[in-house]
Order: sequence, then structure tokens, then C-alpha cells
Amino acid sequence: MKRIEGGVTAARGFQAAAAAAGIKYRDRDDMAMIYSAFPCQAAGVFTSNVVQAAPVRWDREIVRQSKTNGSVRAVVVNAGIANACTGEDGRRACRETAEAAAEALSIGADQVLLASTGVIGAYLPLEKLANGVKLLTSRLSDTADASLSASRAIMTTDTVNKEIAAECTLGGKTCRIGAISKGVGMIEPNMCTMLCFVTTDAAVSADMLDKALRFAVADSYNMISVDGDMSTNDSLLILANGQAGNPLITEEDEDYRVFAETLREMLIEQAKKHAADGEGATALFETRVLHADSAEHARVLAKSVVNSMLTKAAIFGHDANGGRILCALGYAGVSFDPEQVDLTIESAAGKVPLYRAGAKLDYDEEEATRVLSEKTVTAVCDMHAGDAEATAWGCDLSYDYVKINADYRS
Amino acid sequence: MKRIEGGVTAARGFQAAAAAAGIKYRDRDDMAMIYSAFPCQAAGVFTSNVVQAAPVRWDREIVRQSKTNGSVRAVVVNAGIANACTGEDGRRACRETAEAAAEALSIGADQVLLASTGVIGAYLPLEKLANGVKLLTSRLSDTADASLSASRAIMTTDTVNKEIAAECTLGGKTCRIGAISKGVGMIEPNMCTMLCFVTTDAAVSADMLDKALRFAVADSYNMISVDGDMSTNDSLLILANGQAGNPLITEEDEDYRVFAETLREMLIEQAKKHAADGEGATALFETRVLHADSAEHARVLAKSVVNSMLTKAAIFGHDANGGRILCALGYAGVSFDPEQVDLTIESAAGKVPLYRAGAKLDYDEEEATRVLSEKTVTAVCDMHAGDAEATAWGCDLSYDYVKINADYRS
Repeated sequence: MKRIEGGVTAARGFQAAAAAAGIKYRDRDDMAMIYSAFPCQAAGVFTSNVVQAAPVRWDREIVRQSKTNGSVRAVVVNAGIANACTGEDGRRACRETAEAAAEALSIGADQVLLASTGVIGAYLPLEKLANGVKLLTSRLSDTADASLSASRAIMTTDTVNKEIAAECTLGGKTCRIGAISKGVGMIEPNMCTMLCFVTTDAAVSADMLDKALRFAVADSYNMISVDGDMSTNDSLLILANGQAGNPLITEEDEDYRVFAETLREMLIEQAKKHAADGEGATALFETRVLHADSAEHARVLAKSVVNSMLTKAAIFGHDANGGRILCALGYAGVSFDPEQVDLTIESAAGKVPLYRAGAKLDYDEEEATRVLSEKTVTAVCDMHAGDAEATAWGCDLSYDYVKINADYRS
Repeated sequence: MKRIEGGVTAARGFQAAAAAAGIKYRDRDDMAMIYSAFPCQAAGVFTSNVVQAAPVRWDREIVRQSKTNGSVRAVVVNAGIANACTGEDGRRACRETAEAAAEALSIGADQVLLASTGVIGAYLPLEKLANGVKLLTSRLSDTADASLSASRAIMTTDTVNKEIAAECTLGGKTCRIGAISKGVGMIEPNMCTMLCFVTTDAAVSADMLDKALRFAVADSYNMISVDGDMSTNDSLLILANGQAGNPLITEEDEDYRVFAETLREMLIEQAKKHAADGEGATALFETRVLHADSAEHARVLAKSVVNSMLTKAAIFGHDANGGRILCALGYAGVSFDPEQVDLTIESAAGKVPLYRAGAKLDYDEEEATRVLSEKTVTAVCDMHAGDAEATAWGCDLSYDYVKINADYRS
């Protein structure tokens, strides 16, 4: 993957903007817009929670319709209120926001995607939203600064904004992919962190865009976890406007593979930022499962470890509590021989084998604590059962996670 | 259920003892023994973790053998070291402990059940265990004090000991059931808290004892959760020595129903003590799911709510964050119509409806906070989908949970 500067405006033909609409926050931007001067193919993956926020339902329908006409033009996002569990009022807020954007941008309401993040069960103030949309439209810009502002406007409990962009060559043409995303709580690895928006100037058919997105998400956003709570609002949207001029990707050829692999590597980097910025986190906690008997089992095992509250608390305490890791593998719902498993912890400070063949080794506790005191720590679990592997990312469980979530609404 | 004083020694013919063997703790008892002067039918339910501690494997085999001869006589327990992930050394520790108990008690090693709780991946000191067994044997007593001491000796991070006893009439004879248990961390509702030992003087066949135990566990220990981490050591053992002189229970007749229902009510009371004493907990958090479309769905939904980290943090903060509860119902893996769900919070301080038909109501936040400031708080989720219901118990997530588990081993 060739990284380049910027975010969603790195891809040609895309503009972005941020504005302070006063929806919930004071003294900060809380709305963002992404706009393409050209119609886009769109694809999306959304929360699998039975309780789905109104904008998720809206987007599913717009993405479905766009399969036939590829005419998506804009995404409007607000932070502070999730517009989930809001019934008919919530649907009305979606309709009116899309209509306000359509009027301001002189496009159709069915060309507008929506996303909300924040408190569940609170109602969006319609007039503020409509005013916000007008402000956003007047500020649209294709500069890197515009993407940066948008990436900041969508943050809730995030402590850092999250942008990424990369370049690849498709049919001799340079194509760009950019993304902004947010979400560091209510995150659980079954699709995905709360919001991620990807733009690309590559020409890709709707089907291939959808396929590439699902391929990329499986190893990235679906492999991170902060707290095991799957949000009602998770949305990952990708818009492709074809302005790079590459030959349209319509099948799984070499161009498709280059595009999908670039997207996958980008989203892995981006997803790890969410885990590292997990609410209250002091460390990124990576778990690599090696030699599992199937790819699916490897994923399930790796996720079970990064989700284990006891393991997360031990990581916070820099405690080499390998037993909790083996325990979390054991309740993942996958059958394996515990007396085959090797467990090693690794970081920039070194590597310490904790268990071999399921039994504890006589390692140096001080050295283990040193290894676990880095900002990124990895548990490597070798199952000795096959050839499959997977990596999952989470974070430690700190006092601050409790503090943040015990009074998030206030 | 008719409650009586005492614990495992309330049932006739049972004795108990505690001793300080110095296995890990200093200045406290860390071993316990339960002994029956008469052979017992035995039944057990154990962790479903793939990684099972050596004593769990030992007990499964002893309980299996006892189905044919009903000759179990003793349980030996240690706290401090779990004897899990210890390979061949762990198996040897079980064999030698059972043999030491057999010699001291003049019974067979295959009449001895074992249980360990504490740190995973640490090795038991065999000589200390053997000395502990001798001490325990010399102190066996049928007094209430003996049960009390045993209930204290098996504690790890528990802050209160847990005993219960009840009486029922079977075939005109008064029968007694007693229990001691421990476990307030690494608790996840799929069998069960770490250790629970039940004694009864009722005469019950091995099959009916097993059936009654599974019936009672489904609504009690399998419905509590502290942190979603399923232990490697969970064991619930019941011994029945028949000393009450009631007609042997061999089928699902009225006597069986009385016995099983008494056991069920006892174990619900006992299981709730574990949730209320959850590591770092400041409140018992109960979730009742009403009008679900099946009993299994009701259970899964109720457990999902008590397991939600975000909901647990909100309960700690006395924050009426009903959205997180609806969200947790939504990712439980059960299909339902979110726009049918009513949600109410209740406690000794009153009752506040938060959501009706999936949409947030305009309730008084101060009143909701008052309701949530009690020691026991309940979320009632009415699914309006059928006739099934279930109740699960958990606790809030506090700073102290993190503190306890960030340096448990040290």
C-alpha cells in the first residue's frame, strides 16, 4: 500500500466540510458533509444489531437503490445524537435532513446518505440540522484541511481524529482512496466501529465495490473490539466516482485484486487506530492466532481473547496473566486441544513465551512486565492444529473506561 | 422454600472443616473439606470451557463412576491456585490429594471429589496439600460453625461468605439441603460461578439427582454474570446421603418436584449472592425479560443485558441509559421487533418507564437516578412477542473491578 497525505478529499472529485450546528456539543463542529461532484457507485456494511438507528435503515435503502443507477452524491453526518430508538420521529429526521441536503446541493434526496453517532434515545433537533446542512454546503472544499475538519467534527469520545489515504495503479491510471472514521466505544467485532466513510476516484462497478468492501472489512473493522457492545449505528460507506479514468472494474481481475488489497490494508491501519484509541485505553492489544484448523476458528479465537474483560484488565496492569488468555480461548466456542497451545507475549521491548503445550513455563515476571509496558502489546497463540491464522485488535480496560461510560450522557 | 440456619452441615450425616495450608494465602484458611459418614449419590455440572482444570476432569470421572455405585464420601477444596493449565503435574496433584484424603478418611480415592480455585497456570504444592488434608480430617465437625469456616476458606476475591440451607418434606420425612459456594469474578452465565457444593440428606437416585440439579441450575447459576469470562474451574457438586429416611426418589413424582423446586429456589438465592458480590460491584443488577417468544430467547436476551459493559458502567454511574439496554437486547442474536419493546427500571425507590414501543419517553432524569441509586436495581424489558420470561443477574462495572483484576496475581 502506498500511503499518501490526506483523507476523503484525496480522491479526485470529492469535497468535504464541517460545521458547528449546536446539536449537542458547544464550541465545536458537530456536523460533516462529504460531497462528490460526480455520481458515485456506493456500497456499505452496517451493524447487525436488531435495533438499528434510523440513518442505518435509510442508508440500506439508498445503497440498495444505487445498485441500479450509481447516483449517490453526498453523505451528511452528525455527532452527539445517534437517532436510534427514536421511532417515527427518527425516520422523519432522516427524511428532512436528506431533503435539506438535496435542496442545498441541487440533487435528489435519494442521492444522500446519512449517519449519526452519539446518545441513543435522544431526538435530533430538526431546525438545527437543516441550518447545519446549509452551512456545510457553503463550506465544501476539496482541500486536505476540509477532510481534516470533517474527521474532527464526527468524533464523540475519540481522543484523536482518524484519516487515511492511499494510492494504487489500476489499468495504468493512478487511483486514490481516502477515508475518515470515528468510534472508540460500543465497539464489537461483528461489523464494526461506529462510522467510517471511504471515497475513491477509481471506476468500480457496484457489485465489485461491494465485494471489495466486504473483503476488506473482514480482516479490519470486523477484527477490532473495545467493549463487546455492538452499536445500533455502525456504518461503513464507500463512494466511487470513477474520476481516475481507469478501465471500469467489473470482474475479479488483477485490477480488482490491487484495489481490494489496497482497501484492505488501508482499513486495517484505520481500524487499529480505533482500537488503540478505545475508551480509556492505555495500550493497543493485538492477538494473533496461528495454526488454527480454519480461518473462521482463528478469527473467533482471536476475538475472544481481545474481548476478555479479565485479560483486558491484566493488560492494563502489565500483568502477564497468560492463564486468562488460555481461558478466553477455551470459552470461544471452538474445539481444540488445550495441551497443544503455545502462548507468547511480544512488544517492542521483546518476547516472552508464557505457556508451552498448555502448561505454564518458568519465565521471568519482570521481563514479562517490561514487555507488557509498551503502547502496543501482542499475544501470539499457536494452536498447532492447522494452517489458518487471524489477528484481532482491542485495548486494555482502565479506570477511565468506567469513568467515561458511567457518566457519558451528562 | 423453608429456609433454615446453616450450610452444608445442615443436612444429616455431613461434616465440614477448614484449615490453613499455606498454599498461597497467609494468615487465613485456604482449604476445606466436606465429608459424609454415609455413601452418597453425586451429580455435578461443570464449566463448558475447552480449557478445563485438572480437578474438573477428575470430578467428571468420579461422578460418572458413582452413577453405578453411589459411593462418594468427600470433597476436598483449595483456594489460591486453580490447578488449571498445569498439564501432567496438575493431574498428579489431583491423584495425590485424593489419595491423601482417602488414607486420612479410610475410604477409597475414587470416593473423593476435588475442587480448586484461584490463579490459572500456577502449580499446587503437593506436600502442603497433603498436610492440609490431614488437618482437615482431624477437624471434621457437623456443627454450623464448621460449615461457616469451610464457606470462608474457599473464598478468593469474594467479600462475603455464601451459605444457605432449606428444608422440605418428602414422603412425610423432613429433608434438608445445604450449600456453600464462592466466586465473584471470571463468571459467565453458561455454567456457572466457580464453586458450589450442595449436601442433602434426601434419598434420591443418581438419575433424579442429576435431573434436579440441571433443572435448578438453568434458572440460577446459569443466569448470573459478573464479567462474561467463563472459568476453567466452574463446578457445582451435589451429594445426597439418604439419611432423612424418605422413600427413595426414582421418578418425576410429587416428591421429586418438591425436592427439585426447593433446590431451584435455594440456588437462585445463592447465585444472586455471587452477582451482588461481583468483583468491585456496588449494586446487584437484575434484568427481567417478559413476553419473549420462547424461554431460550428470554434467557439469551436477559443475559445479553447483564453482560453489556456499557450498561454495567451506566448502572455504576446511576445513569438511566436505556438506549444501552435496548442496544444489548439488539445484539443478543435473537430476532425481535424493536418497535414493540417497553423498558422500565425499578428498585425499592420506585419505578420509571424509560421506553415505550422502542421509543424514548419523556421521563424525569432525577427520579430515574434515584431509582438507580439503590443496592438492587432491575431492568424490565417487555418484548410483547409471546409468553416466555427469564431473569438474569449481574452487577455494575466499577473502578474497583479494574483495580482488582489489573493486579490480582500480585
